[in-house]
Parts: sequence; C-alpha cells; structure tokens
Amino acid sequence: MNSIKLTQTVQKGGCAAKVAAAELKVILQQVKFPPTRPDLIVDGSTMDDAAVIQVNADLGLVQTLDFFTPIVDDPYLFGQIAAANSLSDVYAMGGSPQTAMAILAFPLATMDSSVIVQVLQGASDKIKEAESLFVGGHSIDDDTLKFGLSVTGYVSPQNIWTNAQARPGDRVILIKPLGTGTATAALKRQAVSESEIQDVLKSMAQLNRIRHLLSDSQWKSIHAATDITGFGLAGHIQQIAIASQVSFEIQFQNIPVFPNTMAFLEKGFLTKAHRTNREYTEKNIHFSRPTSDIEKMVLFDPQTSGGLLLCVDAQAAGGVLKSIQSDFLMAREIGQVTSESGHRIIIQ
Amino acid sequence: MNSIKLTQTVQKGGCAAKVAAAELKVILQQVKFPPTRPDLIVDGSTMDDAAVIQVNADLGLVQTLDFFTPIVDDPYLFGQIAAANSLSDVYAMGGSPQTAMAILAFPLATMDSSVIVQVLQGASDKIKEAESLFVGGHSIDDDTLKFGLSVTGYVSPQNIWTNAQARPGDRVILIKPLGTGTATAALKRQAVSESEIQDVLKSMAQLNRIRHLLSDSQWKSIHAATDITGFGLAGHIQQIAIASQVSFEIQFQNIPVFPNTMAFLEKGFLTKAHRTNREYTEKNIHFSRPTSDIEKMVLFDPQTSGGLLLCVDAQAAGGVLKSIQSDFLMAREIGQVTSESGHRIIIQ
Repeated sequence: MNSIKLTQTVQKGGCAAKVAAAELKVILQQVKFPPTRPDLIVDGSTMDDAAVIQVNADLGLVQTLDFFTPIVDDPYLFGQIAAANSLSDVYAMGGSPQTAMAILAFPLATMDSSVIVQVLQGASDKIKEAESLFVGGHSIDDDTLKFGLSVTGYVSPQNIWTNAQARPGDRVILIKPLGTGTATAALKRQAVSESEIQDVLKSMAQLNRIRHLLSDSQWKSIHAATDITGFGLAGHIQQIAIASQVSFEIQFQNIPVFPNTMAFLEKGFLTKAHRTNREYTEKNIHFSRPTSDIEKMVLFDPQTSGGLLLCVDAQAAGGVLKSIQSDFLMAREIGQVTSESGHRIIIQ
Repeated sequence: MNSIKLTQTVQKGGCAAKVAAAELKVILQQVKFPPTRPDLIVDGSTMDDAAVIQVNADLGLVQTLDFFTPIVDDPYLFGQIAAANSLSDVYAMGGSPQTAMAILAFPLATMDSSVIVQVLQGASDKIKEAESLFVGGHSIDDDTLKFGLSVTGYVSPQNIWTNAQARPGDRVILIKPLGTGTATAALKRQAVSESEIQDVLKSMAQLNRIRHLLSDSQWKSIHAATDITGFGLAGHIQQIAIASQVSFEIQFQNIPVFPNTMAFLEKGFLTKAHRTNREYTEKNIHFSRPTSDIEKMVLFDPQTSGGLLLCVDAQAAGGVLKSIQSDFLMAREIGQVTSESGHRIIIQ
C-alpha cells in the first residue's frame, strides 16, 4: 500500500522502545522534584497511567503523555494506534479525554509529507471518535518518525480508577487479547505482512472506551484499572498489587491471546522488553501450574495500545464483562484480587 | 564542565529545528481535523501560543507543548531553557502554569544517565520556580537527545491574551533582548564558549513570569501577547497583526539585542530559520528607514525561550514597562499598534 516501510526506518518500535522501568527508576531517584500540592490527588507514587489534579469538588484533570516510533508500516494506522494508545491512559483512570496535542518528529528531507498527513489523519479520526479536541502540538525535524499525544481529560474525583483502589474479592477483567509485542516484532523482522495480523492491528487501533457500554451502577462497580502497555500483563498487575497492597490469582487458561500469538512466541519473535519485564516482576510472580517458558512470555509481552485491566466488584463483574463484550469480543475474566500479603501474582 | 558537548550531538538545535511554518501549513491543510466545540475558546485559527478550553465561567485551561534538541552543551542549563520555553506559552496567554509533563528522548546506550538526571533537574527547578507540579511524562530510547514539556495552565476567561486582541494605539513592549538564534548558532559552530554568551544563556533560562511584578490594573491593561520563539520578532508580530487585523510600527533603534548579537550576525552565524522567517514575513514587512541586511536579520532571528511581546494600553504602558524592568532589565517599548489595513509591519 505504501512504498516506504515505516517499521524499517527505526530500531525499536512502539512501547518496546520505552526506557525500561529499572533504568528509569535509577535516573528518577537522583532528581530532586518540585514539592507536591494538596490538589495533586493522583501522583507518580502509585505508578498510575496518568496524574490527576483536582480543580473543584466535582472535577479532576487527568494528564498524560505518550509517543513512540512506528510499529506498523501503514502511516494512517500508525496514527490511529499512537492516538488510541495515548488516549487510553485517560480511559484507564476512569476519565474522558477532552483535548489532545501532537508530539511529532519526522525526517523532513527524506520522508514524503503525505506520510505525515496520513499519520495526523489517523490520529485526528481517533480523537474525533473519542469526542475530543485536537488543539495543537509541536513538530521537529528529526532522523526518525515519532508520534504521540499529550492528552487532558476530565474525571470525577469521586470515581478515579487509581492503581491503589483494588479490593480483595474483586474480579479481574482484561478487555483486549495479549500478543501485540510478539506480533509487531514479527512484522518488524518482515516475517509476516500487515494483512496477516489484521486482528492485532485492529485491536491496537481500538479505543479503550467503555463508559457508553455500562450502566451507572456498573461503572461505579469498577474500583481500579490500568491499561496493559510496555510492562506487559505481569508488570502492570504488579503495579496495582503494590499500590493496593493486595495479591492476584490469575487463571492462565482464561487470558485472551490472539490466534497467532503462541506461534510467534515459539518462533522467537521477542523484544528486549520481554526480558526486562520478566526481570521486573520475577520477585512477585509464582507459578502454581506447569508453565512453559513460551507460555510465560505471554505474561511479559509488551503491549502497544493494550486493553484495560479492570478490578471489578465480584457481584457486578459478570454483567460488566457481558456489556463490554459487545464492543470487545475477546474480553475475559482472568482472575481475582486476594488479601494475601507480599503483592504476589499467582499464575494458576 | 561536561565532557560531552550536547550541541555537537545534533544537526539543529532549539527552535531552529522547528518545522518551518510554510511546510507545516501545507501538511496541516491536507488533514481533516475533528470538529471544534463551543468550549474551545482559543483554537489554532489565531496562531496563538496555546489553546484554551473553557471549564466554567471563571476558569479556562491553557494547553501547550514544546520540545527540542540541545542548544547548549550544559545539560542542567538545557533542562532549564527547555522548561522555561515550554512554560512560556502559558505565560504568553496570560495564564499560570499548573502541571508539566516531560517529553524525553535520549540515546540510552551512549549517553551517561547523569546527563539525563541533570536535564531533568534543570527542568524540575524551573517548574518549582513556576510554582507548578511535575506530573510525569514519557521517555524513549532515541539516537539524539530531545527534551521539552507539555504544560497545562489556568487562565481567567475574561483576561486571555490572545493574538486577536491587540488594539490600535497599544504600545508594544518586548521584555527580553533578541539574538539567541545567532548566539546559539555561534556556539554550535564552536566559535564561542558558553562562558562568552552567559547573558544569552541566562536570558533563555529566565521564566517569562510577570504577574507578580504588576498591579491588578496594570495586568488588565495588557490586551494581547505572544512570546518570541522560532518565527522571530517579525514572524510573531505578523501573527498578531493578522489575528487582530491591525498593523505595527516598530522603532528599530529601540529593539533590545544582546551586546554581541550584531557581531555574531556580521560573522554569518545564521540558521535555516533566518531565511524561512524572512520569506514568511516578506509580504508584510516594510522598511521606512535604511536597514542593512545584517540589521534585518535581527528581526528574523529565531528565538529559543524568547521574551514576551505585550500589546499594552497606551496610558498604562509606561508603568507596566517600569514594573517589568525590575526583573527584565532590558525590557523596552519598541513600537505601537495602528489601525492601518494590510497587517503591515513598518520598521522605522
């Protein structure tokens, strides 16, 4: 479709290009940050998807920012995925995106401007679908294409899905399949074409927008949420476990994956993040079932624009899942939150 | 001070790396953007420094984003300048910054992490000085260092300094000297050391924060404002002239420049932006005094973290200037707004 293969213009694509958690932590620990304020009601301490600043009793502002290099070759699709990924952090806090600004870097001299037009069009169409405003941004001349959004959303201060609010007994729902990391690694190595991983591409471009699928009471039954991105399922569950001081039991067989995911993992389509995510979670993850090394990689697969992981009141979980499945066919209940200490992730 | 010379790691630095206005316009005209909404009270149509979305009768949210490659070698100073430059767009709308998120790209394998710590520390210290919150961001592994902030600010909807509010008779005040473009070009070519352009570096790191210097009535006497950045003095004046449907008379001799600016321009320390800014404004700029080509370059010099340009009620302008000069020693009144048609910039 396009003569230029965007994935071949970069070393690492998507959330796999993210600086690893451990390396980032070492850097951030050495910086003396400005003092906090009482109106900052969600900060970095809970490793949440976004920060929230309280404007008044009824309104909080969700603030998030994300950008990356191409993980697909089609520029329109890349724009859609990058936008869906950035908007997702607002959805993951229980918020609704309001404004988006573009972060754009591209090689002015060598890349046809039609590529940039398509990237922006893909993002614009997703911002429109999110009923949000595209209010500007910044572009620079750079060696490789990078794109993403800074997003501000509104949220009710009474109903913020922070990582710290998971409760023992909550059911755990994952709304998109895992496997985008290994699929895009296969694409980058030109082992598959985009037409062979249409399901993965479509999933990454889908907005994590579920408010309109749920009743008010269903909405309020969601206690905590995150979206699964660069740290993989295990990494993001670990962040909730630590912030909420709980443990998780996950039924491996219930975890949704794309039809081709296991085959890609078996063929060794891995990224550096598969290894760093394994290291990141190794102290907390425990396997109470025989789990092969390939199967374990599902848990560490870095997602780009992955699905929401919801911790939902047990009574309401069945109804919430059914409602969400109208738009997210592969959404599944994959486990439960327990009061066990040690913020363990037990794979059953 | 540092063994690594950051400016030698990149092709183009600071606002000179910005994609030229004309090229960007061609791209943006081909994108079909999402529909606007009534609550978007300042959008892209006035080429303002930031967008404003109205939350309620008393509160607007200023939204802006900026990032670039190193223009100085000292990483702490680069962080300060990048932060001051990003925060400035909120000040230029009459707003107060509240939250900032980092946009960070750096070569993980080749750049010592202490460089990143210093960049972040420089930014943190400026965010603290701005009494704002540092609420996160995103970092990626990339060939060259890039840094900037996405900033959200609060503004009173009754007192927004849009580009469209300049009134004939207003006096024009510029609060920092011009010449950062040519000085940083000289630095990049290693023709000068950082210690020789301390005045320029200090100016770029200074926050465009003036609210605390002015009385309430002085504050309200400011009708329109912008900050002088990549498009240079002439380019940014042109944007106000078009948005406000006015013309400007500028007294060349009153324009503040750094002591070494003319010498740098004479030596030919120019960037691509000097040429594109000249082209951008050539239909509107008129010289009613003999002006050499070197002098003209002052008007086209791309600024990084340049000063605010204020259009102020004539009665109040003297007092406003005097108050601002307590923190901005080289602030000057450089001209006036006229009702002449054709949004001309007449250099007298």
